[in-house]
Amino acid sequence: MDDNLFETTLESIKADRERGASELARECLAVMAESTRNMPANDEAELYGLLHRRAERLMHARPSMTPIYNLLLRWQTLINEKNDQRLATARVQAARLADELIEYSLRAVGETARQVAEHLGPDSTLMTHSLSSTVLAVFRGLQGQGVKAIITESRPLYEGRLLAKRLSDWHIPTTLITDAQIGLFVPQADAVLVGADSLLPDGSMINKVGSYPLALVARDQGVPFYVCCESFKRRSETMGVPELEAMDTTELDATPLPDVELQNIYFDTTPAHLISAWFDEKGMHANPQYIR
Amino acid sequence: MDDNLFETTLESIKADRERGASELARECLAVMAESTRNMPANDEAELYGLLHRRAERLMHARPSMTPIYNLLLRWQTLINEKNDQRLATARVQAARLADELIEYSLRAVGETARQVAEHLGPDSTLMTHSLSSTVLAVFRGLQGQGVKAIITESRPLYEGRLLAKRLSDWHIPTTLITDAQIGLFVPQADAVLVGADSLLPDGSMINKVGSYPLALVARDQGVPFYVCCESFKRRSETMGVPELEAMDTTELDATPLPDVELQNIYFDTTPAHLISAWFDEKGMHANPQYIR
Repeated sequence: MDDNLFETTLESIKADRERGASELARECLAVMAESTRNMPANDEAELYGLLHRRAERLMHARPSMTPIYNLLLRWQTLINEKNDQRLATARVQAARLADELIEYSLRAVGETARQVAEHLGPDSTLMTHSLSSTVLAVFRGLQGQGVKAIITESRPLYEGRLLAKRLSDWHIPTTLITDAQIGLFVPQADAVLVGADSLLPDGSMINKVGSYPLALVARDQGVPFYVCCESFKRRSETMGVPELEAMDTTELDATPLPDVELQNIYFDTTPAHLISAWFDEKGMHANPQYIR
Repeated sequence: MDDNLFETTLESIKADRERGASELARECLAVMAESTRNMPANDEAELYGLLHRRAERLMHARPSMTPIYNLLLRWQTLINEKNDQRLATARVQAARLADELIEYSLRAVGETARQVAEHLGPDSTLMTHSLSSTVLAVFRGLQGQGVKAIITESRPLYEGRLLAKRLSDWHIPTTLITDAQIGLFVPQADAVLVGADSLLPDGSMINKVGSYPLALVARDQGVPFYVCCESFKRRSETMGVPELEAMDTTELDATPLPDVELQNIYFDTTPAHLISAWFDEKGMHANPQYIR
């Protein structure tokens, strides 16, 4: 992967509105695997220097999406541990470590989804917001078992419509609503289930904007609010609170007007006390602080 | 107004997505004034019979919008009290009563807005949802006094963009957001202020869908949530709870898919305990049951 292709890929990751944090994290690892294999370098030290610089730039490309940071940091740590090899061996080793982390991430997402599906069981009506690959895997896991979906369109770019297409392909009965209708449809759900882009040390979580009002409605209506995300989405104390990314306001499709400012912040924070339980690859973690 | 024109007008009132409940109620009164003046009838009894039938149809055209029902019912009561006149006199009298009620409604809306503006005072940042003519009048009343607005686009038909245009014309600094971003912007407001389509006897209110999640966010963030509506929006116990109107799902602009049902319910109910105070033409009514 030459510099031009890397820059193009970095920009496409920054601009990506369809893939979730885990998918983009694996894309970043794939970029590093590819870079490792064919980046020009005279020796191992030079190669590692160049790789770390690329990794750092990817790690800060999507601040709200913690697995990108965590998986690349893990990869950096792993390759540093092997830092005493010849150049050719180093390339093979570092690329293999990236591939293994991609596999690891995929397995973690799959196992998280399996844990959720097992807990929720057949015949449940699940409500979700935005498009999470983990939630998608839960629906796939419960396909043909009487599961139903209630999903939001998820403005501005309507990921909910993409989710509707996937659920339709799997013949899962689905209700698609505007984001403003959550108050009317949460009461029809057995549980609200969302993915997360980041899980903070205090148990609060960052996800597509609109998740926080949805959690408030769920608590007010007595419907459990579950967050499912593999452990690579956890932030440590030292990482601090991430920026909530704002995107281009042209996505709102509103005519520019004098004195009118458009805002297009993509994420919000749902406090821990609104979350009934977190699911990860190890299972369900009920929240003792959840206030019904 | 002949039968064809009446039917067309009735359909346009049913289909109207831009005007609020009070404006449509006055439109209905204007339809009745016009009908009163020129509806063919042989005597007063026949005229009144025909008028009552038209009024009844208008009263049920928009079940979520109580002032239509209340103002037409009031008009029916008033014309029945004068029910002993010659035909020509009856026409003049009934039309004048409709015109007077239109004036009365306009004054009530204006006075309600004045009460809100007086309470909120200059330099306040007000957040609202959808497009309420009363809220609009509050902004007009506070124009040039440092007032700022935070407004939602209000899917599916984006009344928020129409509101942004009005506020822009008045040079009121405005932030326009998607409905899903309410959790991020309520904390920046001094108060959330919405109109209402109906006020129920228990103090709960029916308004454009999305008002209920907004009220939950306001309470969670410690920002007052005010409802402003003139007293013609109050429902009596005998009127029961109105239907929450659903509109054409093509307004969602989503591709129809097998197993995917679209929903487009226009109103939701905000329970009384989430409302800090109600404003009407008589002033502010603080809610003793409001739980901070």
